[in-house]
Amino acid sequence: MPLTDDGCWLSETERPGLEQRIRVLEMLYAGRSEYQEIQVVVTAPFGRALLLDGILQTSETDEFLYHEMLVHPALVSLAQPRRVLIIGGGDGGCLRRVLEHPVQEVVQVELDSQVVAVSRRYLPSISAGAFDDPRVRVIYGDGIAYVAEGNERFDAIIVDSTDPAGPSLGLFSADFYCHAASLLSENGLLVSQTGSPLYMMPEFLNAYRNLRRAFASVRPCLALVPSYPGAWWTFCVAGQGAATLDLTREEIERRTRERGLKLRYYSPEIHFASVTLPPFLAAVLASPQTFPPESAYPVLYPAT
Amino acid sequence: MPLTDDGCWLSETERPGLEQRIRVLEMLYAGRSEYQEIQVVVTAPFGRALLLDGILQTSETDEFLYHEMLVHPALVSLAQPRRVLIIGGGDGGCLRRVLEHPVQEVVQVELDSQVVAVSRRYLPSISAGAFDDPRVRVIYGDGIAYVAEGNERFDAIIVDSTDPAGPSLGLFSADFYCHAASLLSENGLLVSQTGSPLYMMPEFLNAYRNLRRAFASVRPCLALVPSYPGAWWTFCVAGQGAATLDLTREEIERRTRERGLKLRYYSPEIHFASVTLPPFLAAVLASPQTFPPESAYPVLYPAT
Repeated sequence: MPLTDDGCWLSETERPGLEQRIRVLEMLYAGRSEYQEIQVVVTAPFGRALLLDGILQTSETDEFLYHEMLVHPALVSLAQPRRVLIIGGGDGGCLRRVLEHPVQEVVQVELDSQVVAVSRRYLPSISAGAFDDPRVRVIYGDGIAYVAEGNERFDAIIVDSTDPAGPSLGLFSADFYCHAASLLSENGLLVSQTGSPLYMMPEFLNAYRNLRRAFASVRPCLALVPSYPGAWWTFCVAGQGAATLDLTREEIERRTRERGLKLRYYSPEIHFASVTLPPFLAAVLASPQTFPPESAYPVLYPAT
Repeated sequence: MPLTDDGCWLSETERPGLEQRIRVLEMLYAGRSEYQEIQVVVTAPFGRALLLDGILQTSETDEFLYHEMLVHPALVSLAQPRRVLIIGGGDGGCLRRVLEHPVQEVVQVELDSQVVAVSRRYLPSISAGAFDDPRVRVIYGDGIAYVAEGNERFDAIIVDSTDPAGPSLGLFSADFYCHAASLLSENGLLVSQTGSPLYMMPEFLNAYRNLRRAFASVRPCLALVPSYPGAWWTFCVAGQGAATLDLTREEIERRTRERGLKLRYYSPEIHFASVTLPPFLAAVLASPQTFPPESAYPVLYPAT
């Protein structure tokens, strides 16, 4: 969505009849890559923020909530995460958190080299030098094709994409998840951001159900990302084991400490709290009914 | 805040430079009581909603999140909640949840009889007949004076007020909390809605610290209320015991079942998840520093 006519507000429709308006103080960068419009703006409430096609992707003040919850629940659950594949994530905030774990190699497949270049220049606090780490190999290309054609093995695959539309749509498909599952090592995990469980319920349910077609266990984690629509966000962690994310609190504490994770949102306690679904949401996930946009309105939460 | 000039949007400033705009489809009631402007509107995203002085107080689609978390964590923690005092709560959603517990008497002190009359007429799904329950005694008057002059004993006092401004300001003061503490039975609990931990951090901290001056234990619970600024909301539960809210999961399950609670958001698992604070927020609460609005901006979350 473009900046609104009254000059300096970024207006995002969260759902029909619900908008978030963010005051933009300054435009630091505006350009167009082969794939999308890229802007970096200074916002009043969230500091510097990256916009792709006019939609806020991340901000320097609340990126930690998103990236810690995208990465740590899954990687802490892996005893030895050696090789990690990141799809998307051009701002580098995901990569930076992955590198806090004892990984030996990270392959990052990002469609748009311009997103990386602009983020490194205008949002350096988010990647914090992660792209310079010798363990990192960045490939500019299509993550869907990479996964479909790949023959490397990974202990974790992290999908840090834009919401399901345009080129990202395929990253939420059962085909993609099946291909990704075939690249995972035994006990390997796939994580994907899967949107707002309230305002994007159809998209969230679609991703969840497609993941269920490729994995034995799919666990949605909940976290707060204030700059996103509805603030409440989901990350689905999927694996072939029966008890994805279920390890003891002592083990989580030990790994968190031994790896020296820098934590502001995630903690051993948050690990468990984040996978606790309120009954109304658990009921939606357990229901065979689909919730297309039409039937999700005007009643926000299907009665249980 | 009044409806905006472009006719049919309710615009709320969440913090400087951050607004939520809610489409208003219809005005069902508009009037002025002795104390405030009262409106009931039909909104596109949240259904019917009550506005006081132009600020959204509750909506029929997400009131359950707010009211379940205001009432159940505390009352489930009480083995025998017999007498309960509610301050405010004119829409009746709090009262309705209190009555699900085995209470013998509920005294509700509401400043504005018009709020109750309008809510009962235009938002009947929220109170669901609670005001007709013979266990309920409604007193129209000043809750602060009632508590200061009171000599009745209560097992729980629930403050379901507007945010700290105008006549509600005193409901967040140390004086009020001390008076309230003196009315509680042994092991009694006080609960108050204490606002957004992000966008109202100074007010939240003020309430938390004033509660600490009157109570040995203060536990913030976190919950989601999508129609409120920032969606993330706090409820502080305070008592003189060392372990407010700490009971076993089995005990919570037993009480929840025996009392036949109707739950869509609260559950035994959510009981524990809701008191789990992310490290950055725990650090803010543990810090002696106050965060006036000036210093809270532009960095949303004080670095830990």
